[in-house]
Amino acid sequence: MNTMEKILENLDINSWVQNFNRSPLQENNPHESDAELIQIGEDNSHLLAITIDSVAEEITKGLYKDPFTMGWVTVMSNFSDLAAVGAKPLGIVVSVSIESTRSKAFCQNIAQGMSAACRKLGVFILGGDTNTTRTISLTGCAIGLVPQNKKVTRIGCKAGDFLFLSGCAGCGNAIALVHLAKLPEEYFPESSYRPIARIKEGQLIRNYATCCMDTSDGVIHTLDQLMRLNKKQFILNNNWDEILNPSASEICKSLNIPSWLLLAGVHGEFELCFTIHPKDISEFIQAAKKIDWDPVLIGEIKEGDGVKINNKDGLVAIDTAFIRNLSINASQNPQDYIKGLIDYASKLGI
Amino acid sequence: MNTMEKILENLDINSWVQNFNRSPLQENNPHESDAELIQIGEDNSHLLAITIDSVAEEITKGLYKDPFTMGWVTVMSNFSDLAAVGAKPLGIVVSVSIESTRSKAFCQNIAQGMSAACRKLGVFILGGDTNTTRTISLTGCAIGLVPQNKKVTRIGCKAGDFLFLSGCAGCGNAIALVHLAKLPEEYFPESSYRPIARIKEGQLIRNYATCCMDTSDGVIHTLDQLMRLNKKQFILNNNWDEILNPSASEICKSLNIPSWLLLAGVHGEFELCFTIHPKDISEFIQAAKKIDWDPVLIGEIKEGDGVKINNKDGLVAIDTAFIRNLSINASQNPQDYIKGLIDYASKLGI
Repeated sequence: MNTMEKILENLDINSWVQNFNRSPLQENNPHESDAELIQIGEDNSHLLAITIDSVAEEITKGLYKDPFTMGWVTVMSNFSDLAAVGAKPLGIVVSVSIESTRSKAFCQNIAQGMSAACRKLGVFILGGDTNTTRTISLTGCAIGLVPQNKKVTRIGCKAGDFLFLSGCAGCGNAIALVHLAKLPEEYFPESSYRPIARIKEGQLIRNYATCCMDTSDGVIHTLDQLMRLNKKQFILNNNWDEILNPSASEICKSLNIPSWLLLAGVHGEFELCFTIHPKDISEFIQAAKKIDWDPVLIGEIKEGDGVKINNKDGLVAIDTAFIRNLSINASQNPQDYIKGLIDYASKLGI
Repeated sequence: MNTMEKILENLDINSWVQNFNRSPLQENNPHESDAELIQIGEDNSHLLAITIDSVAEEITKGLYKDPFTMGWVTVMSNFSDLAAVGAKPLGIVVSVSIESTRSKAFCQNIAQGMSAACRKLGVFILGGDTNTTRTISLTGCAIGLVPQNKKVTRIGCKAGDFLFLSGCAGCGNAIALVHLAKLPEEYFPESSYRPIARIKEGQLIRNYATCCMDTSDGVIHTLDQLMRLNKKQFILNNNWDEILNPSASEICKSLNIPSWLLLAGVHGEFELCFTIHPKDISEFIQAAKKIDWDPVLIGEIKEGDGVKINNKDGLVAIDTAFIRNLSINASQNPQDYIKGLIDYASKLGI
């Protein structure tokens, strides 16, 4: 059985959560949605969506070197969580912890990255806090509103539902690969990594999706978590040319690494992964076209268990627990982590 | 002129804020309130109050050694900001960044400190995020609701208003003094430092106060900021026996340090500092009695400028800009900071 408890990250979250009482105003249980959903007001027509997300490990590990990227991703990662529950943003507050040795220009570049990301989404920074510490840690907390009858969580898909991504994936892991494997910067320049939270698409998805989660920890992580929460089988098609970002795929080809591993690494992007019931497909596709959006069909949901890739020789079961736990078990050594993923793909033969 | 720009902390905040556009939904300007006040919903009967606050420097500098204290203060510091705008809490989300070398027990103690603080206030942790980093940084983001016509900000006091604290002050600086000066723990045991955010009192204050700010950076810092924002003169009485926490005062006496310096250090507590118009005083005091609360009258507001202590020989002007900026100028060396404050008090002769 693919239970939640087989994933180290879920166990870590549970070890925190067990200490806390739940609010009677909270609609979601732990793990069940990308943002917390809280009842406000008396008419209860809208829920408040709130999420908190820090950008710290990505900086410590050298994935982001440009302060503009650090600020940009802090904003985008938080609004991506709001997008995944279908919320309309109210804004974001930020807490900046930074070394005293950093220059004013460095701090201004973080601020400009945050500001540019906000302008891109049409949202606002409402306030914040600054601290002097030994290492950089940037925390955002975004809030938004979602109509009570339109909220989307990670739970609700049924066998027969179609599986979508809001756009092609793999950029996040491409930039992680370039930095961790110390490849030349031109393979994937950091300045080209400017992911955009799918706020607008999330507000369309909420009218149709049976479940939704963002790919901030990579697509395989997302499929694994949705599979465990919904107790269904997730079939992933192998139309990699449509699923994967072309520049990211190019890196894998030149390094002779299976390109689907761009979905397996833990440094994801901020696409939405969601499911649509067959009866709603045509209306959903039409509505998406109207906002010039072309969601990517990546697979389907079946009764059963596990995540499988629909390969030319049939369905190949993926040990998604191994893949997810490797990101923690090999977290001290990036080379071990990359090698572990490549070895696993080689064993699988895809 | 005591302008906002004479304070290094205000300049630092301005250097961030200048990069950001303001939300049309936001009711407060930068510096003007302890929590951000955001319009929500169509009837606009309530504002959403939101604040973000990290506990990091206190840990790096060795002020808190017990993980329970770290968790407790993360919760209290955030709800104290909500208290200062008169908000009723909806809950808090937390982001925990911690070294990979820390034990499970250490993390559980942080969680238990957070949980105990929430139980004390009758509030809930709604969700969170965990990260592995090189140094501990605990960030909370608390949200609440305040009726539109009851909001309290840092602005609005008039000459003639009475100046209050929600309770006696000095505990925060006492524990900082003990740890920074490396005094024996029994002078002020860390386990006795369990400040409580004045949530209940904040919801009473909002019916009467003309301005309010919490003392999280120390009472003198708070008075200085309110003085600059309101362009009034703040007179502080010298009834130190009522104003200062007795255990905290005891430490100063035994070290032969002027006890009013417990108001001057930057490691404050979570009392509310607020002003009441004379016509509302008797009703306010009666209402406070009904909830078994005994606010401390500490001074009054006059036309003019500056913060002054009403000493036996008359009014003594305090160079509050020097005191506030010293906390940044001498931040690299705690001994210099403590000596700087003591030297200043000695020069002043009080």
